[in-house]
Amino acid sequence: MNASESKNKAVVLMSGGLDSATCLAIARDQGFDCYTLSFDYGQRHKSELHAAAKLALGMQASDHKIIRIDMSGIGGSALTDMDIAVPEVESDGVPITYVPARNTIFLSYALGWAEVLQASSIFIGVNALDYSGYPDCRPDFIEAFQKMAKLATKAGTEGQEIGIETPLIHLSKAEIIQQGMALGVDYSQTISCYQADLEGKACGRCDSCRLRIKGFFDAKVSDPTIYQQS
Amino acid sequence: MNASESKNKAVVLMSGGLDSATCLAIARDQGFDCYTLSFDYGQRHKSELHAAAKLALGMQASDHKIIRIDMSGIGGSALTDMDIAVPEVESDGVPITYVPARNTIFLSYALGWAEVLQASSIFIGVNALDYSGYPDCRPDFIEAFQKMAKLATKAGTEGQEIGIETPLIHLSKAEIIQQGMALGVDYSQTISCYQADLEGKACGRCDSCRLRIKGFFDAKVSDPTIYQQS
Repeated sequence: MNASESKNKAVVLMSGGLDSATCLAIARDQGFDCYTLSFDYGQRHKSELHAAAKLALGMQASDHKIIRIDMSGIGGSALTDMDIAVPEVESDGVPITYVPARNTIFLSYALGWAEVLQASSIFIGVNALDYSGYPDCRPDFIEAFQKMAKLATKAGTEGQEIGIETPLIHLSKAEIIQQGMALGVDYSQTISCYQADLEGKACGRCDSCRLRIKGFFDAKVSDPTIYQQS
Repeated sequence: MNASESKNKAVVLMSGGLDSATCLAIARDQGFDCYTLSFDYGQRHKSELHAAAKLALGMQASDHKIIRIDMSGIGGSALTDMDIAVPEVESDGVPITYVPARNTIFLSYALGWAEVLQASSIFIGVNALDYSGYPDCRPDFIEAFQKMAKLATKAGTEGQEIGIETPLIHLSKAEIIQQGMALGVDYSQTISCYQADLEGKACGRCDSCRLRIKGFFDAKVSDPTIYQQS
């Protein structure tokens, strides 16, 4: 038996952003054999997919899958509908960048893969503090998904429950960055921007950029992001 | 305002089989404006997709979407892995035709589309009586999904809960057929077989065929299915 066979397996959802990279570092640090999962869902910020693959490779994931899913057919979000602009000022309530049922769909896939891999855990870098107000990032949602997942799977009904791990859920963006720095995450490789260009340069103005900029500032860590104007 | 604008909308999951066709007929009969959703998930029985589209058209769905999703990459089932044979004898426990997290993934998509359409309901033809023992067909699972869905969506958090409707869940296959016949469902257009050929002819031996054959027999309805040997 080699080293990876003796470890518990985890599926780690990887957007290629700051949070998911930190989440992968935490899963690795906890001793998991990590299988990373990204989605090409018609998002306008495709460069995050390259970032995710590069990060997974650099952080020694055992496998990295990119699943192509058609969410543009469903519509209703600035991230998947090119006719809706990404807002550059803060909005009240759930913003137009919310993608209906996105985390539910992502976690459902992760659940299927985790069951096939006989993984014990799924890691997702959701955060309910410095976040955009999306309903599917909150602890209540994760808890309800966990209960549903137990009933949904053959594994769950046979007592091998797959745990949904959210190590960042109660951390501020600055705390996430500090934890990632301590684990050696190279944040220059991560892309958070909702409208990053093809080279991965960030706009510096969207909600996700604003949260990230403030995070580096509050963490007193030099921001390695390359912005489109710089 | 035309007739369809005054009706409540429902997303109806359509496999193209006997159950989903009956489910669509019931949703229509209850007065819903129906939006049907099928998945091309790498299943070996692709002819069911043609059946689904034809049934949706014939039963006047307002829109029919076929979403292509990659589940063969996840593997682990005789329905998506061509190296695993479809069993032709009854098995104990959850059979190898179980596709990990399939209904969770299907319902998650339906949830996303329902939210965009501002639909009040999702119809799914799961059945916990004459079924293959899949965990994601049971009432407990549906109830847990419903709770999760409320927390997952913007609609749910704003008090517009999307209901998961399972009109067939406690019916026998014979009762489903009787109900469908009363609503005018043309079962000759439906395909249930896990290994139907390209023309839609059924094998008559897989689990799904066996349940269907018994259903027509018990319902005392002439079986309109075309079998490969006939």
